Amino acid sequence: MSEVRALLFDTFGTLVDWRAGLITQLEQWGTARNIAADWPGLVLAWRRDHVLALAKVRTGQREWANLDELQRETMRQLAPQFGLPTLSNDTLDRLARMWHELPAWPDTVEGMARLRAKYPAAPLSNGHVALLIRLARAAGITFDAVFGADVFRQYKPDPQTYLGAATLLGCAPGEVMFVAFHPSDLEAAAACGLRTCFVSRPLEYGAGVVVEQPPAQGDVDLMVGDLLELATAMGC
Amino acid sequence: MSEVRALLFDTFGTLVDWRAGLITQLEQWGTARNIAADWPGLVLAWRRDHVLALAKVRTGQREWANLDELQRETMRQLAPQFGLPTLSNDTLDRLARMWHELPAWPDTVEGMARLRAKYPAAPLSNGHVALLIRLARAAGITFDAVFGADVFRQYKPDPQTYLGAATLLGCAPGEVMFVAFHPSDLEAAAACGLRTCFVSRPLEYGAGVVVEQPPAQGDVDLMVGDLLELATAMGC
Repeated sequence: MSEVRALLFDTFGTLVDWRAGLITQLEQWGTARNIAADWPGLVLAWRRDHVLALAKVRTGQREWANLDELQRETMRQLAPQFGLPTLSNDTLDRLARMWHELPAWPDTVEGMARLRAKYPAAPLSNGHVALLIRLARAAGITFDAVFGADVFRQYKPDPQTYLGAATLLGCAPGEVMFVAFHPSDLEAAAACGLRTCFVSRPLEYGAGVVVEQPPAQGDVDLMVGDLLELATAMGC
Repeated sequence: MSEVRALLFDTFGTLVDWRAGLITQLEQWGTARNIAADWPGLVLAWRRDHVLALAKVRTGQREWANLDELQRETMRQLAPQFGLPTLSNDTLDRLARMWHELPAWPDTVEGMARLRAKYPAAPLSNGHVALLIRLARAAGITFDAVFGADVFRQYKPDPQTYLGAATLLGCAPGEVMFVAFHPSDLEAAAACGLRTCFVSRPLEYGAGVVVEQPPAQGDVDLMVGDLLELATAMGC
């Protein structure tokens, strides 16, 4: 790992617990309006279906739209299936912005602080810069830079995102380590020549729910249980 | 100022003392090689002439090149005038990278910390992202995001830089305040609809050296003596 000069982090699921954060916010929102629904189910569907919206932008089937826009549309489609009343644009906007304030995993803040003492670190996320700034401030995470999808006007796993971030960091791809829980994201980064680290987040989709199988040992450069373990592995 | 939601900062001269920092580094470099020169004069000329190189990129007379490349070229042209020996590419690279590590003004770190407690803050600089990351880490400054010229592939005072940064911040231009010492930079930001704050840096070019006259009271939204005064004015 001695050639690594900077770190990039997937954000949703890897640094913050979108599932617990969204369920809490939706429950509070619903309680205040006397609306009940299967919030955990809705949150899983929201996460699952927004990936389809991202893919349409990535493949050029639709013009650039940021994550707020895509999350509003995805929620508009899901709401009837979960028995929600018709949601106004203002309400959809409010719900989409729930993705801006999510709790960090217990090791994230300390792990990132230790890693940053040695390495510049930035998120590489499908969120946009404004979202990531709010997310970091709310979760108490400090970065050296913020690479949102709007910087590249393209979504992961498009190579432009991984390579674009490495270029902005002033690094060759092999000098950057990309840290994520999602094997497909790690695979795309590795295909661009980045170093990769799998960090286990067994609760991302809820206890016992496995969406992607973890990578095999040889598929990534490092496998760690959390960011504290990564910090130790990197000599931080 | 109640509509301001985020702050942008010019960097060289406004947050860091490039002049003192470069003179110190060049003196050390020269002493180690038994090279003497008018370092203060060279540094002023370097700063002055690199603006011409930036303008060529801005006006499309040449392709995109980052600040390191432009500073190398400018120094290559200046070296003979200041009696320096022929400089190798490696040496030019080393000298250009002196712009990556410059001391903060005495109020910068504390002022920025106070401002960031209330407002997201980022540099908007003609430096590139990698340079700004190194600069911030070396000077002990923390930002919420980093807007280098390479994000926009354009240099200030082109409107794309001010407006591009506002867009990435998720703000209307009038919701962003741009803080700088240079009146021409402030004027260009104001023409894009940004709020502006002049911060006095009387030592930027050396004691008693005035390169641009300060703006008149009505030309900017705020005029402050340093960032601590700005923090107080913004209720931070």
